[in-house]
Amino acid sequence: FSTVTLDAKTEKKAETGSVGGAAGGGRDKEIVSYWGVSPAKVTKEDGGEWRWSCFRPWETYKSNLSIDLKKHHAPVTFLDKVAYWTVKSLRYPTDLFFQRRYGCRAMMLETVAAVPGMVGGMLLHCKSLRQFEHSGGWIKVLLEEAENERMHLMTFMEVAKPRWYERALVFTVQGVFFNAYFMAYVISPKLAHRVVGYLEEEAIHSYTEFLKELDKGNIENVPAPAIAIDYWQLPQDATLRDVVMVVRADEAHHRDVNHFASDIHYQGHELKKAPAPLGYH
Amino acid sequence: FSTVTLDAKTEKKAETGSVGGAAGGGRDKEIVSYWGVSPAKVTKEDGGEWRWSCFRPWETYKSNLSIDLKKHHAPVTFLDKVAYWTVKSLRYPTDLFFQRRYGCRAMMLETVAAVPGMVGGMLLHCKSLRQFEHSGGWIKVLLEEAENERMHLMTFMEVAKPRWYERALVFTVQGVFFNAYFMAYVISPKLAHRVVGYLEEEAIHSYTEFLKELDKGNIENVPAPAIAIDYWQLPQDATLRDVVMVVRADEAHHRDVNHFASDIHYQGHELKKAPAPLGYH
Ligand SMILES: [Fe+2]
Ligand SMILES: [Fe+2]
Ligand SMILES: [Fe+2]
Ligand SMILES: [Fe+2]
Repeated sequence: FSTVTLDAKTEKKAETGSVGGAAGGGRDKEIVSYWGVSPAKVTKEDGGEWRWSCFRPWETYKSNLSIDLKKHHAPVTFLDKVAYWTVKSLRYPTDLFFQRRYGCRAMMLETVAAVPGMVGGMLLHCKSLRQFEHSGGWIKVLLEEAENERMHLMTFMEVAKPRWYERALVFTVQGVFFNAYFMAYVISPKLAHRVVGYLEEEAIHSYTEFLKELDKGNIENVPAPAIAIDYWQLPQDATLRDVVMVVRADEAHHRDVNHFASDIHYQGHELKKAPAPLGYH
Repeated sequence: FSTVTLDAKTEKKAETGSVGGAAGGGRDKEIVSYWGVSPAKVTKEDGGEWRWSCFRPWETYKSNLSIDLKKHHAPVTFLDKVAYWTVKSLRYPTDLFFQRRYGCRAMMLETVAAVPGMVGGMLLHCKSLRQFEHSGGWIKVLLEEAENERMHLMTFMEVAKPRWYERALVFTVQGVFFNAYFMAYVISPKLAHRVVGYLEEEAIHSYTEFLKELDKGNIENVPAPAIAIDYWQLPQDATLRDVVMVVRADEAHHRDVNHFASDIHYQGHELKKAPAPLGYH
């Protein structure tokens, strides 16, 4: 349904002569032309106009589906165990709440999943400024993770709709989780990244369950949303199953990056000492 | 040329054999190979290896130096005036502190300039997640601004070195400014963007003074740092003067974007209602 809105958006842009657009009408137009800011026109490979403002052609990719889904960091140190059991204990209420509604579950959990990358990226950005130092690419890696998770949400939004109490829940959970993760990252980035590593392991598990339900026919394998087809360079006839496959592969990549980041800290280094896995997906 | 980089991306995924690198040494390498994360190999247009991790080839650009440097938003409403006089009153202590040391001034102020984009982008990101809504590209626009400002800092760091008390000052100023801007953005994004618009107008003024000092010979016109040559696609023999020119043009672009964003809010709209000026520089 958002496809409709986005189409509508593009149309508007076309009919307003590529300025202003949307609800503002005449006055918006004036302003845009006064400040001279208009989005750079981006074209698709085939020459058509690019319809998305949340990602651009050079950010799309073909997912590496061959990534090992079973990799696991065995908790060794005390902090590892704290991270592991924190995540495990969060699993029970989550399972209880969502039961088999994996579409809804995916959508809801992606609203949370997009927080750590943003918090980590922001903190490293501020640190880079304060210390007059390069981050070695880690700011970008973490912000890219946040954006990738936001794309997961934008995709699942197309196939599931949140009810009002689910919106209220997301609101509350984000408030708590943002602050908790912020504090954790300030106090111990190695713990914070480890927690995310384990969260991603659980996400892989949930998406595997999602796939099972799709294969059993308990969840309808609807066509993939247009946004997903463009973002992951999927074939035009891709289905929800294909989307879940690439999303699961993304989570496995996040798992690797975060466990790796935690490992760097465990060895007493700062992230910038190791090469940032830019463009790893 | 984005095709080149994308090709490169696919390649490196295949040859994940070459891992590790950087300062960590042996143990780091093991970890990298366990998690299989290694930075995507990116090549330059001429086939050489890309040396920067803080920006990538498709993020470089030729600055539009023809941008109007004189544009100004005349403060009309009460909030406009608050924004205007806040910025004006910050100018005096700043002038007093730095006097004619424009290199040092640029470096110090860029540590502050990179904060608003990050705060705004982060808040819009969280809002997008909470509301299950697209941001219309504004998250990306603001994060790009933050990154661009960070690149200004990374550039000026090469020509000026902070002393210990300057580091202490930056530390304090960032703590205060981050929180102040965060609060301002939550309470009134229209005020927040207006303040940034005026700050950018002042930045243009300072860089113009910087250029005058360079032309008078009071500041030595040293060769441009390598990072600046690659980021702004400058000729190999570019100088500090060329760098200040493109940085000033960047500030003029930020001025436009932020005044525009404020104008959208003044008309009672959310940013997502107007097309985000993606890739505007
Ligand atoms: Fe996700
Ligand atoms: Fe994830
Ligand atoms: Fe700047
Ligand atoms: Fe600026």
